[in-house]
Amino acid sequence: MAVSRTMGAGTAKGKRIAVVSRHAEADASLEVDQLSQYLGYSLKRAQLRIFDDFIHCVAPLQLTPAQFAVLLLLEKNPGRNQTEIARTLGILRPNFVAMLDELESRDLCLRVRSDNDRRSHILALTEKGAAILARAKKLIGTKHEARLRELLGDDNRALLLAMLEKIAREF
Amino acid sequence: MAVSRTMGAGTAKGKRIAVVSRHAEADASLEVDQLSQYLGYSLKRAQLRIFDDFIHCVAPLQLTPAQFAVLLLLEKNPGRNQTEIARTLGILRPNFVAMLDELESRDLCLRVRSDNDRRSHILALTEKGAAILARAKKLIGTKHEARLRELLGDDNRALLLAMLEKIAREF
Repeated sequence: MAVSRTMGAGTAKGKRIAVVSRHAEADASLEVDQLSQYLGYSLKRAQLRIFDDFIHCVAPLQLTPAQFAVLLLLEKNPGRNQTEIARTLGILRPNFVAMLDELESRDLCLRVRSDNDRRSHILALTEKGAAILARAKKLIGTKHEARLRELLGDDNRALLLAMLEKIAREF
Repeated sequence: MAVSRTMGAGTAKGKRIAVVSRHAEADASLEVDQLSQYLGYSLKRAQLRIFDDFIHCVAPLQLTPAQFAVLLLLEKNPGRNQTEIARTLGILRPNFVAMLDELESRDLCLRVRSDNDRRSHILALTEKGAAILARAKKLIGTKHEARLRELLGDDNRALLLAMLEKIAREF
């Protein structure tokens, strides 16, 4: 274990460095035990791993997790404007505009000027966007999420979701 | 609930739009139930909330979560080089160099050319870096992490950490 290796080394400086070099050759693992006790660090690590797998899983469709979230929100919330979608996802306006430019250039969504407020853009899924979203859901459900469910078990997965929801809403 | 409101509206197009406008005025909440069932989305939301609180908590010290992680790793792993620290934290090289430039300009860490390999930089905490880290740990422990512990309860917090660790290591 990382802790005992580090604690075992280091009485003499020369010895410590020698031990460190051996670790570097072996697996380069660092002592991260204290860091891992911080929820923020552990959340970020798990999130990066899950996003990597997500991107790999939908690679044939070239969708990022954020793009997938936008398409899914558009499907479930027709008639909403750009500001509402960006705010819900916590995406900053310039980043969201760039993302919409790309989705629109790939014919996955449309910006339509609102009849009520000419400064506001209503967002809509295109037919192609809906088809890509359906394929993405299927890939994610049968691969990415299915493997996560298998790894954690149904009960633990539900508990994990409930705790994450609690943090996002109440913390 | 978002789902029933959305399902209740929308038989006639005019009616749907009217209902949506009322929602927008009331709380602008969108139907996110399906999205919330994806672990990646829920993890990201919780992580953003926790990082916001972390930054707020250590505002007097001006440390980001990533900078805090670097300082903590340097404390626990003396004699390691730039590449090892960056790899452990999953930070891309250009971003890490920029971060080190800032930490070094604030006199919180030092880059020292390695005796063994002149192309490699060993990273070290300065005295000021160690002092800031100690203050940050205290602030985070007594405020940020203490409130998270209170929100989740000790057992659930431990279970959450264990699941996040499992995802990061085994998924």
